[in-house]
Amino acid sequence: MDIAVIGLGLIGGSLLRALAGAGHRVFGYDSDPATRLVARAAAAQAPGGTGWQVPDGVAQSVRPSPGQPVELAVLAVPLPAVRPVLAELVAAGYAGLVTDVTSVKGPVRELAGEYLSVPGDPPAGFVGGHPMAGRETSGFGAADPALFTGNPWALCLEEETRLPAWLTIAALVTSLGARVVPTTAQAHDRAVAAVSHVPHLLAAALAARMATDPLAATLAAGSFRDGTRVAAAAPALIASIVGGNAGPVRQALDAVLADLAGARGALSQPDPISALRPWLTPGCAARAGWPPAASAPEELPARRDALLHLGRLGGWVTGVALDRRSVSAAMPLRSEPVSPAHPGRAG
Amino acid sequence: MDIAVIGLGLIGGSLLRALAGAGHRVFGYDSDPATRLVARAAAAQAPGGTGWQVPDGVAQSVRPSPGQPVELAVLAVPLPAVRPVLAELVAAGYAGLVTDVTSVKGPVRELAGEYLSVPGDPPAGFVGGHPMAGRETSGFGAADPALFTGNPWALCLEEETRLPAWLTIAALVTSLGARVVPTTAQAHDRAVAAVSHVPHLLAAALAARMATDPLAATLAAGSFRDGTRVAAAAPALIASIVGGNAGPVRQALDAVLADLAGARGALSQPDPISALRPWLTPGCAARAGWPPAASAPEELPARRDALLHLGRLGGWVTGVALDRRSVSAAMPLRSEPVSPAHPGRAG
Repeated sequence: MDIAVIGLGLIGGSLLRALAGAGHRVFGYDSDPATRLVARAAAAQAPGGTGWQVPDGVAQSVRPSPGQPVELAVLAVPLPAVRPVLAELVAAGYAGLVTDVTSVKGPVRELAGEYLSVPGDPPAGFVGGHPMAGRETSGFGAADPALFTGNPWALCLEEETRLPAWLTIAALVTSLGARVVPTTAQAHDRAVAAVSHVPHLLAAALAARMATDPLAATLAAGSFRDGTRVAAAAPALIASIVGGNAGPVRQALDAVLADLAGARGALSQPDPISALRPWLTPGCAARAGWPPAASAPEELPARRDALLHLGRLGGWVTGVALDRRSVSAAMPLRSEPVSPAHPGRAG
Repeated sequence: MDIAVIGLGLIGGSLLRALAGAGHRVFGYDSDPATRLVARAAAAQAPGGTGWQVPDGVAQSVRPSPGQPVELAVLAVPLPAVRPVLAELVAAGYAGLVTDVTSVKGPVRELAGEYLSVPGDPPAGFVGGHPMAGRETSGFGAADPALFTGNPWALCLEEETRLPAWLTIAALVTSLGARVVPTTAQAHDRAVAAVSHVPHLLAAALAARMATDPLAATLAAGSFRDGTRVAAAAPALIASIVGGNAGPVRQALDAVLADLAGARGALSQPDPISALRPWLTPGCAARAGWPPAASAPEELPARRDALLHLGRLGGWVTGVALDRRSVSAAMPLRSEPVSPAHPGRAG
């Protein structure tokens, strides 16, 4: 395929390298001129035939030759940059497939509806996406074509999404080794609020608490180190990710706070040790059984309802057979959780 | 020294190996006969002269030959076992130094006062301790003589603690490579509530929340994996550690919940991204600057006030010169935090 990747940070840069390495003709653009220079120099050093081109604008990236638009544009920019980039796509007359890799899907879905719809019609060529593949590092210099291998990549299948568009992008993403999770913007945003955004808030609160006592900072060990690791991420970045998903994060945070109120109650019992044990048990069982093993892939008809059902059950697509209108799909194995009797680190 | 180690789990077993390797004469006991068999077999395989003995009781361990008690007994048992072991020490007529490695210091201090005091006098030979050196693994089989190297080891210096006893144990512990942090039971329990016990509660709440949504379990990535790692620890163990420190944990949890209420408020603002940024900043600065670098060790008089001041500032003892009544002490360097501009993983 001919593909444009707009935004060449860690995700966009990794995607550029992975797609070019897989034989696609790729055009990458970043609004930062220095990043474009670095990306051009890296292309020149790529093994024969696996380089990419770095035009000087969004329009030139999606329409590299007169009359020859690319088939897919990937928006790999932060949420605040999605609107201006969509406006540039429209201004360039681009009408091909569009996907994105932004951490929150509801707001991007709305923007796509606003910019990519023919009046009265849904945005036919848009499919929202989110690769779950972060790193401590960032920027094009940290880009790694293997970043997506074995990791989940949420791909939104909404009422207005055209199934052939979804399958085309799913085929591309699975060819990079990612696990495509069929979902909706609403279900995605609710899930990542619970397992990604609220953890950032808890980490920040724990780290800030440590700072009030030098003795605590000196005695802090393993449980603190891991529980606060993501708190070191830049506040501006995390605020845009978490604040961009404010509604679902509020709901998930409320649920966690209500649960912690239960722990607070247990600690006030005459025998807090006995009271706390049953409170701790569900979390232990959940974490001891995570991540679950995967079932062997099975063939599944590439139907909207079957795909969304798969995603709701925690399953994912490992490959797409476009000619047979089917996918291969795997599921988390409902094994008994690994025995919670192994004590783990209490540090 | 002649030393008895009562309890041969991860910490007790590691201490047994480290002390024997350092040339001390060590007697180890565990209430589990199978553990004693394993510990005996391991002693037979230790390099020449670095083995240990494994008697069949607490009394035989602290008094291995008639009329020849050991000089130090280390209680390396869980909190619920501290009382019966202290009773056995008293029944055996043991009157030497006693320390412990339990995760909470206030309750052990009370028990020591109850069992080790001559009526009307404080427990002269007792010094409460806590090595901050957990592992995912547990039991004698996981014991590692290098477990303590470079890690903090809180050592309580209370009003009733005899300074020579404290210095003797501090000298022993620093000789194993640990950083001895002078503190009190009250300050220790408050600090570990914030940096160790509350993190366990947050991890359990996050993990339990994930379990309510199979999609969330599939999309969970780095921030979930690290933020919940300790939730896999056995509920009975964690309940005894956290519930054994119920009062300070309640206070620390309340402070964290109040802080999170601030995040909840920011998420309800018209511009949650801008509102969240300043809320995230203190935690980022704290975590980006942790762990701090250490100052070069300096000589400090081995005085109670100087030692406790050192501990309050987050400092630690790296060695003890018993003859000169001085210690070498290091401090966390008050460096500017590493730039919080590096984005970190947002997964």
